[in-house]
Amino acid sequence: MDVMEAARAREAEGKRVIHLEVGQPGTPAPRHAREALGRALESHSLGYTVALGLPELRARIARLYGEWYDLDLDPGRVVVTSGSSGGFILAFTALFDAGERVALGAPGYPSYRQILKSLDLVPLEVQTAPANRYQPVPSDLRGQEFEGLMVASPANPTGTMLDRQALSELIDVTAEKGAAFLSDEIYHGIEYDRKAVSALEISDDVVVINSFSKFFSMTGWRVGWLVVPEDNVRQVERLAQNLFICAPHAAQVAALAAMDAQDETEANLAVYTRNRALMMTGLPDAGFDRIAPPDGAFYVYADVSDLTDDSRAFAQEILDGAGVAVTPGLDFDPQRGSGTLRFSYAGSTADIEEGLARLKAFMARRAS
Amino acid sequence: MDVMEAARAREAEGKRVIHLEVGQPGTPAPRHAREALGRALESHSLGYTVALGLPELRARIARLYGEWYDLDLDPGRVVVTSGSSGGFILAFTALFDAGERVALGAPGYPSYRQILKSLDLVPLEVQTAPANRYQPVPSDLRGQEFEGLMVASPANPTGTMLDRQALSELIDVTAEKGAAFLSDEIYHGIEYDRKAVSALEISDDVVVINSFSKFFSMTGWRVGWLVVPEDNVRQVERLAQNLFICAPHAAQVAALAAMDAQDETEANLAVYTRNRALMMTGLPDAGFDRIAPPDGAFYVYADVSDLTDDSRAFAQEILDGAGVAVTPGLDFDPQRGSGTLRFSYAGSTADIEEGLARLKAFMARRAS
Repeated sequence: MDVMEAARAREAEGKRVIHLEVGQPGTPAPRHAREALGRALESHSLGYTVALGLPELRARIARLYGEWYDLDLDPGRVVVTSGSSGGFILAFTALFDAGERVALGAPGYPSYRQILKSLDLVPLEVQTAPANRYQPVPSDLRGQEFEGLMVASPANPTGTMLDRQALSELIDVTAEKGAAFLSDEIYHGIEYDRKAVSALEISDDVVVINSFSKFFSMTGWRVGWLVVPEDNVRQVERLAQNLFICAPHAAQVAALAAMDAQDETEANLAVYTRNRALMMTGLPDAGFDRIAPPDGAFYVYADVSDLTDDSRAFAQEILDGAGVAVTPGLDFDPQRGSGTLRFSYAGSTADIEEGLARLKAFMARRAS
Repeated sequence: MDVMEAARAREAEGKRVIHLEVGQPGTPAPRHAREALGRALESHSLGYTVALGLPELRARIARLYGEWYDLDLDPGRVVVTSGSSGGFILAFTALFDAGERVALGAPGYPSYRQILKSLDLVPLEVQTAPANRYQPVPSDLRGQEFEGLMVASPANPTGTMLDRQALSELIDVTAEKGAAFLSDEIYHGIEYDRKAVSALEISDDVVVINSFSKFFSMTGWRVGWLVVPEDNVRQVERLAQNLFICAPHAAQVAALAAMDAQDETEANLAVYTRNRALMMTGLPDAGFDRIAPPDGAFYVYADVSDLTDDSRAFAQEILDGAGVAVTPGLDFDPQRGSGTLRFSYAGSTADIEEGLARLKAFMARRAS
């Protein structure tokens, strides 16, 4: 957040900033989705929906599991949520009691920790190894006590994925402990060389969190979904009714239509693919050569410990010197993030090109 | 919820149900609001907003406090939330630690209790007196230990209000205990003989929860706001960022325009005023004569303890016998609600007329 504030201040002075720190697509919701909402604004009152979400949206989401993973998912297990944020709150509240521990790989999405703490739960950060591409493996969990494990694949900030075997092993080790398994799949669909594996391909006894924010380019709409085990549906429904009443109705209407806007979502994916290729050559060119190719999402996590031991100061230096905003790794990993940076390529290709050129010039000046 | 399920089942059989159980306006968001969103759908990406909400919406909400209460409110203290639901979660999480007690008047909105429990807080239900029109008074709180008090004026399910003196006394008694004062003002604007008093007219050291759902007729949009003391803004901002990222952007755009749709909101208020007058004569006519005129909101809370000792069974009997859905008091007051019913007049005047006629015929048959 500090970077975004500093970037805003710089822009307020009339300077142009290239935003490689943003965690959202630069594109709006698909036109098809916006048009569907435009029609609904004329003809529907858009009052509360039922707590679990519009039945036709739940059915369409279930159908997505057929299209993406060849799974036959019961729409009754789909819970429409107020973004993945609402999904996390619901899932954590449903699964855990005060004081219980939820294991998370570090680096990871910083709000996991904060949401857990706000709900009087205990985040248990597991230091993942660069050799494992910053994903947890069963040996990381040995000797640890926890009531839940949450993984993310593709992950933020690294873009790395868990393949079927890695995911299976983590699900097994969690089941052996009698702990709950949560899978954050909000970047599914944004994947490059191979498809992301859903935890639901391996087990029905998992909670999946997903969202329309990223692949469907609908961040500000605050609509996502959970898939929960059948036995949890009633409990989650009661919680959703009390905590949220429902997810935003207008966003649900738009989300339903977004799922049939394949031409636009595929076009966005083509942009990310192009941007990723530019990053894979442009970052090493600029001197950020300790990076692993991301499997998905729109982030590159770079080890910059040879360049700095204070990633916050380095991000500020890059902003001041290059006019490029990037995210210090400390946001994702309080222990080791002083030596890492996250570069986002969610923006336009022109911005990525400009950002890389600025980084290259800045790093050349810095080295001389 | 049981009544709504039963009503749906009845409608699925092709029978017409008059809905006097609903907690939301039958009208859509103001046309002006929907048109503003229609334009934004063309020209804005509607990505994340900043956590505290669109600056222009916060400023416009602050201006509302000038228009409604002649208050000069700093927009910096306004936090746009994902409905009042999001506001409750944020306020409770910001103000209280696990195990702390929040006093609430009973009868009251049932989700207060459930949200508090979900957050590992302890709802302390204070039995209010019919003589006090079901609002808490300082003597109800004597000898009680709590870290927060939440009041609602106009209240759900009774529609009764706290006048300036009553509100001042409650704020004072809460301050003496060093407890936090929360004021649910989501029905403000829907008031009949006199204007509702905001807790902010009395003290700046209170948290006000409000919403665009009721007066602005935007239930399904999930947009509301908090006003918090200046010292709490940064903490609430961090929590909002982590727990919600932001309130739905599309709803924020629509809400901003809704605040300048006075012609439509006033027209809705005129309907409620007409409906209320019909209820005030029609309910006693039908045999529900133990009612107090509501000061605001769109509910009448009736003492039916002379007619039943099981309000759930009675509500079912009314649904079966009259085709009218009403809400049993047990939803609002687990201790005494077996002898009360809530009638909503948020619907169309035609529905209110039909509902009252049905109730009258049913009660006449029942008595004979």
